[in-house]
Amino acid sequence: MPAFTLDSRLQADTLPIGELTLCRVLLMDDARFPWLILVPRKADLADLIDLDVDERRRLMDEIAMACDALKAAFGPDKLNVAALGNQVRQLHVHVIARFTSDVAWPSPVWGVGERQAYPPHASGSLVDRLGKLLAPHGLTETQA
Amino acid sequence: MPAFTLDSRLQADTLPIGELTLCRVLLMDDARFPWLILVPRKADLADLIDLDVDERRRLMDEIAMACDALKAAFGPDKLNVAALGNQVRQLHVHVIARFTSDVAWPSPVWGVGERQAYPPHASGSLVDRLGKLLAPHGLTETQA
Repeated sequence: MPAFTLDSRLQADTLPIGELTLCRVLLMDDARFPWLILVPRKADLADLIDLDVDERRRLMDEIAMACDALKAAFGPDKLNVAALGNQVRQLHVHVIARFTSDVAWPSPVWGVGERQAYPPHASGSLVDRLGKLLAPHGLTETQA
Repeated sequence: MPAFTLDSRLQADTLPIGELTLCRVLLMDDARFPWLILVPRKADLADLIDLDVDERRRLMDEIAMACDALKAAFGPDKLNVAALGNQVRQLHVHVIARFTSDVAWPSPVWGVGERQAYPPHASGSLVDRLGKLLAPHGLTETQA
Protein backbone atom coordinates (compact mmCIF):
# COMPACT_ATOMS: atom_id res chain seq x y z
CA MET A 1 0.00 0.00 0.00
CA PRO A 2 1.45 3.40 -0.92
CA ALA A 3 2.24 5.62 2.06
CA PHE A 4 0.23 8.70 2.92
CA THR A 5 1.89 11.95 1.88
CA LEU A 6 0.30 15.33 2.48
CA ASP A 7 -0.38 17.27 -0.72
CA SER A 8 2.26 19.97 -1.19
CA ARG A 9 -0.28 22.79 -1.51
CA LEU A 10 -2.08 21.77 1.69
CA GLN A 11 1.32 21.63 3.36
CA ALA A 12 2.27 25.10 2.13
CA ASP A 13 -0.99 26.76 3.25
CA THR A 14 -1.35 25.24 6.72
CA LEU A 15 0.26 24.62 10.10
CA PRO A 16 0.14 21.14 11.66
CA ILE A 17 -1.84 20.72 14.87
CA GLY A 18 -1.57 16.95 15.31
CA GLU A 19 -3.16 13.65 14.37
CA LEU A 20 -6.43 12.01 15.34
CA THR A 21 -7.09 8.32 14.73
CA LEU A 22 -7.92 8.83 11.05
CA CYS A 23 -6.97 12.37 10.11
CA ARG A 24 -4.10 14.78 10.22
CA VAL A 25 -5.41 18.06 11.64
CA LEU A 26 -4.17 21.27 10.08
CA LEU A 27 -4.76 24.95 10.81
CA MET A 28 -5.31 26.94 7.62
CA ASP A 29 -2.78 29.75 7.81
CA ASP A 30 -5.37 32.41 7.09
CA ALA A 31 -5.96 34.91 9.87
CA ARG A 32 -9.30 35.96 8.37
CA PHE A 33 -11.09 32.74 9.41
CA PRO A 34 -10.60 30.13 12.16
CA TRP A 35 -10.25 27.20 9.79
CA LEU A 36 -9.25 23.58 10.33
CA ILE A 37 -8.54 21.02 7.63
CA LEU A 38 -8.83 17.29 8.26
CA VAL A 39 -6.89 14.98 5.96
CA PRO A 40 -7.48 11.21 6.27
CA ARG A 41 -4.05 9.57 6.40
CA LYS A 42 -4.53 7.11 3.59
CA ALA A 43 -2.99 7.30 0.13
CA ASP A 44 -4.95 7.86 -3.08
CA LEU A 45 -8.20 9.26 -1.68
CA ALA A 46 -10.19 11.92 -3.53
CA ASP A 47 -13.85 11.55 -2.56
CA LEU A 48 -15.60 10.63 0.70
CA ILE A 49 -16.79 7.41 -0.92
CA ASP A 50 -13.18 6.34 -1.42
CA LEU A 51 -13.21 5.64 2.34
CA ASP A 52 -14.94 2.50 3.59
CA VAL A 53 -18.06 2.83 5.71
CA ASP A 54 -16.28 2.66 9.08
CA GLU A 55 -13.66 5.18 8.00
CA ARG A 56 -16.39 7.54 6.79
CA ARG A 57 -18.17 7.34 10.14
CA ARG A 58 -14.87 7.90 11.91
CA LEU A 59 -14.29 10.92 9.68
CA MET A 60 -17.70 12.26 10.72
CA ASP A 61 -16.71 11.77 14.37
CA GLU A 62 -13.49 13.70 13.80
CA ILE A 63 -15.37 16.45 11.92
CA ALA A 64 -17.56 16.81 15.01
CA MET A 65 -14.45 17.03 17.23
CA ALA A 66 -13.09 19.80 15.01
CA CYS A 67 -16.47 21.60 15.10
CA ASP A 68 -16.58 21.35 18.89
CA ALA A 69 -13.03 22.68 19.22
CA LEU A 70 -13.74 25.68 16.98
CA LYS A 71 -17.00 26.34 18.80
CA ALA A 72 -15.28 26.23 22.19
CA ALA A 73 -12.37 28.41 21.08
CA PHE A 74 -14.22 31.03 19.03
CA GLY A 75 -17.99 30.92 19.62
CA PRO A 76 -18.80 31.30 15.90
CA ASP A 77 -22.21 32.15 14.45
CA LYS A 78 -22.07 29.17 12.08
CA LEU A 79 -19.85 26.28 11.16
CA ASN A 80 -19.09 25.42 7.54
CA VAL A 81 -18.01 21.88 6.69
CA ALA A 82 -17.01 20.88 3.17
CA ALA A 83 -15.14 18.31 1.13
CA LEU A 84 -14.62 19.90 -2.28
CA GLY A 85 -11.27 18.95 -3.77
CA ASN A 86 -11.62 20.73 -7.09
CA GLN A 87 -8.24 22.42 -6.73
CA VAL A 88 -6.38 20.02 -4.43
CA ARG A 89 -7.55 16.53 -5.30
CA GLN A 90 -6.33 14.79 -2.13
CA LEU A 91 -9.36 14.17 0.12
CA HIS A 92 -9.55 16.87 2.77
CA VAL A 93 -12.38 18.35 4.80
CA HIS A 94 -12.68 22.05 5.61
CA VAL A 95 -14.15 22.90 9.01
CA ILE A 96 -14.51 26.66 9.28
CA ALA A 97 -15.83 28.92 12.04
CA ARG A 98 -17.90 31.65 10.44
CA PHE A 99 -19.05 34.97 11.80
CA THR A 100 -21.69 37.27 10.38
CA SER A 101 -18.96 39.92 10.69
CA ASP A 102 -16.31 38.06 8.67
CA VAL A 103 -15.13 39.37 5.30
CA ALA A 104 -16.81 36.65 3.26
CA TRP A 105 -20.16 36.34 5.06
CA PRO A 106 -22.67 35.09 3.94
CA SER A 107 -20.74 33.64 1.01
CA PRO A 108 -18.46 30.62 1.31
CA VAL A 109 -14.83 31.51 2.05
CA TRP A 110 -13.22 29.98 -1.04
CA GLY A 111 -12.11 32.44 -3.68
CA VAL A 112 -12.75 35.48 -1.49
CA GLY A 113 -9.73 37.80 -1.49
CA GLU A 114 -6.28 36.55 -0.59
CA ARG A 115 -5.15 34.31 2.25
CA GLN A 116 -3.57 36.36 5.05
CA ALA A 117 -0.97 34.41 6.97
CA TYR A 118 -1.02 34.72 10.76
CA PRO A 119 1.81 36.54 12.49
CA PRO A 120 3.94 33.73 13.97
CA HIS A 121 3.09 34.49 17.62
CA ALA A 122 -0.62 34.23 16.82
CA SER A 123 -0.47 30.98 14.89
CA GLY A 124 1.68 29.30 17.55
CA SER A 125 -0.82 30.25 20.22
CA LEU A 126 -3.77 29.06 18.14
CA VAL A 127 -2.15 25.73 17.29
CA ASP A 128 -1.48 25.23 20.99
CA ARG A 129 -5.02 26.13 22.03
CA LEU A 130 -6.73 23.96 19.43
CA GLY A 131 -4.34 21.11 20.20
CA LYS A 132 -5.34 21.28 23.86
CA LEU A 133 -9.03 21.18 22.91
CA LEU A 134 -8.45 18.10 20.74
CA ALA A 135 -6.17 16.34 23.23
CA PRO A 136 -9.05 14.60 25.07
CA HIS A 137 -9.94 12.98 21.72
CA GLY A 138 -6.50 11.37 21.49
CA LEU A 139 -4.64 13.95 19.40
CA THR A 140 -1.02 12.95 18.95
CA GLU A 141 1.96 14.77 17.44
CA THR A 142 2.16 15.04 13.67
CA GLN A 143 4.34 12.34 12.12
CA ALA A 144 6.74 13.72 9.55
CA MET B 1 -40.85 18.25 20.10
CA PRO B 2 -41.54 20.67 17.23
CA ALA B 3 -42.26 19.01 13.90
CA PHE B 4 -39.84 19.10 10.99
CA THR B 5 -40.75 21.63 8.32
CA LEU B 6 -38.66 22.16 5.21
CA ASP B 7 -37.27 25.68 4.90
CA SER B 8 -39.28 27.67 2.35
CA ARG B 9 -36.26 28.62 0.26
CA LEU B 10 -35.07 25.01 0.04
CA GLN B 11 -38.60 24.06 -0.94
CA ALA B 12 -38.75 26.73 -3.64
CA ASP B 13 -35.41 25.80 -5.23
CA THR B 14 -35.74 22.02 -5.29
CA LEU B 15 -37.81 19.02 -6.35
CA PRO B 16 -38.51 16.21 -3.87
CA ILE B 17 -37.02 12.79 -4.63
CA GLY B 18 -38.01 10.93 -1.45
CA GLU B 19 -36.96 10.18 2.08
CA LEU B 20 -34.19 8.05 3.52
CA THR B 21 -34.14 7.00 7.19
CA LEU B 22 -32.82 10.36 8.39
CA CYS B 23 -33.00 12.79 5.49
CA ARG B 24 -35.37 14.19 2.95
CA VAL B 25 -33.66 13.98 -0.46
CA LEU B 26 -34.09 16.90 -2.83
CA LEU B 27 -32.93 17.60 -6.37
CA MET B 28 -31.67 21.15 -6.73
CA ASP B 29 -33.64 22.57 -9.64
CA ASP B 30 -30.55 23.81 -11.42
CA ALA B 31 -29.84 22.21 -14.77
CA ARG B 32 -26.21 23.37 -14.68
CA PHE B 33 -25.16 20.83 -12.03
CA PRO B 34 -26.44 17.38 -10.91
CA TRP B 35 -27.03 18.41 -7.30
CA LEU B 36 -28.74 16.67 -4.41
CA ILE B 37 -29.58 18.19 -1.04
CA LEU B 38 -30.06 16.09 2.08
CA VAL B 39 -32.11 17.58 4.90
CA PRO B 40 -32.25 15.69 8.22
CA ARG B 41 -35.93 15.54 9.23
CA LYS B 42 -35.57 17.00 12.71
CA ALA B 43 -36.63 20.46 13.81
CA ASP B 44 -34.24 23.21 14.90
CA LEU B 45 -30.99 21.93 13.42
CA ALA B 46 -28.35 24.29 12.07
CA ASP B 47 -24.94 22.60 12.41
CA LEU B 48 -23.76 19.00 12.04
CA ILE B 49 -23.01 18.94 15.77
CA ASP B 50 -26.68 19.61 16.51
CA LEU B 51 -27.21 15.96 15.57
CA ASP B 52 -26.24 13.27 18.05
CA VAL B 53 -23.39 10.92 17.23
CA ASP B 54 -25.55 8.14 15.76
CA GLU B 55 -27.52 10.61 13.65
CA ARG B 56 -24.29 12.13 12.36
CA ARG B 57 -22.98 8.72 11.33
CA ARG B 58 -26.30 7.95 9.68
CA LEU B 59 -26.04 11.27 7.85
CA MET B 60 -22.61 10.25 6.59
CA ASP B 61 -24.09 6.95 5.37
CA GLU B 62 -26.82 8.83 3.50
CA ILE B 63 -24.26 11.27 2.05
CA ALA B 64 -22.41 8.23 0.67
CA MET B 65 -25.67 6.90 -0.83
CA ALA B 66 -26.23 10.25 -2.54
CA CYS B 67 -22.62 10.28 -3.80
CA ASP B 68 -22.99 6.75 -5.16
CA ALA B 69 -26.25 7.64 -6.92
CA LEU B 70 -24.75 10.72 -8.58
CA LYS B 71 -21.66 8.76 -9.56
CA ALA B 72 -23.76 5.98 -11.09
CA ALA B 73 -26.07 8.38 -12.92
CA PHE B 74 -23.55 10.91 -14.20
CA GLY B 75 -19.96 9.67 -13.89
CA PRO B 76 -18.66 13.01 -12.57
CA ASP B 77 -15.01 14.03 -12.34
CA LYS B 78 -15.41 15.00 -8.66
CA LEU B 79 -18.02 15.07 -5.92
CA ASN B 80 -18.48 18.13 -3.72
CA VAL B 81 -20.08 17.67 -0.30
CA ALA B 82 -20.83 20.61 1.96
CA ALA B 83 -22.89 21.75 4.92
CA LEU B 84 -22.70 25.54 4.87
CA GLY B 85 -25.98 27.12 5.98
CA ASN B 86 -24.91 30.75 5.82
CA GLN B 87 -27.95 31.72 3.76
CA VAL B 88 -30.47 29.03 4.72
CA ARG B 89 -29.87 28.19 8.36
CA GLN B 90 -31.75 24.87 8.44
CA LEU B 91 -29.16 22.06 8.39
CA HIS B 92 -28.79 20.71 4.86
CA VAL B 93 -26.00 18.97 3.00
CA HIS B 94 -25.13 19.66 -0.61
CA VAL B 95 -23.93 16.69 -2.67
CA ILE B 96 -22.92 17.89 -6.11
CA ALA B 97 -21.55 16.07 -9.15
CA ARG B 98 -18.84 18.23 -10.68
CA PHE B 99 -17.27 18.12 -14.10
CA THR B 100 -14.11 19.82 -15.26
CA SER B 101 -16.33 21.11 -18.09
CA ASP B 102 -19.03 22.67 -15.87
CA VAL B 103 -19.54 26.43 -15.75
CA ALA B 104 -18.15 26.86 -12.24
CA TRP B 105 -15.14 24.52 -12.34
CA PRO B 106 -12.80 24.57 -10.43
CA SER B 107 -14.62 26.98 -8.13
CA PRO B 108 -17.42 25.90 -5.82
CA VAL B 109 -20.90 26.26 -7.37
CA TRP B 110 -22.37 28.71 -4.88
CA GLY B 111 -22.71 32.28 -6.07
CA VAL B 112 -21.78 31.42 -9.66
CA GLY B 113 -24.31 32.90 -12.10
CA GLU B 114 -28.02 32.18 -11.76
CA ARG B 115 -29.83 28.96 -11.10
CA GLN B 116 -31.33 27.55 -14.33
CA ALA B 117 -34.46 25.51 -13.68
CA TYR B 118 -34.80 22.23 -15.57
CA PRO B 119 -37.42 21.92 -18.27
CA PRO B 120 -40.19 19.83 -16.63
CA HIS B 121 -39.64 16.71 -18.76
CA ALA B 122 -35.97 16.65 -17.75
CA SER B 123 -36.50 17.13 -14.01
CA GLY B 124 -39.20 14.44 -13.89
CA SER B 125 -36.91 11.96 -15.59
CA LEU B 126 -34.00 12.83 -13.28
CA VAL B 127 -36.09 12.56 -10.12
CA ASP B 128 -37.26 9.15 -11.31
CA ARG B 129 -33.76 7.95 -12.16
CA LEU B 130 -32.20 9.10 -8.90
CA GLY B 131 -35.13 7.71 -6.93
CA LYS B 132 -34.55 4.30 -8.51
CA LEU B 133 -30.86 4.45 -7.61
CA LEU B 134 -31.72 5.27 -3.98
CA ALA B 135 -34.58 2.73 -3.72
CA PRO B 136 -32.30 -0.13 -2.59
CA HIS B 137 -31.34 2.07 0.38
CA GLY B 138 -34.96 2.26 1.53
CA LEU B 139 -36.06 5.49 -0.13
CA THR B 140 -39.74 6.18 0.52
CA GLU B 141 -42.13 8.79 -0.81
CA THR B 142 -41.83 12.33 0.51
CA GLN B 143 -44.28 13.03 3.34
CA ALA B 144 -46.07 16.32 2.93
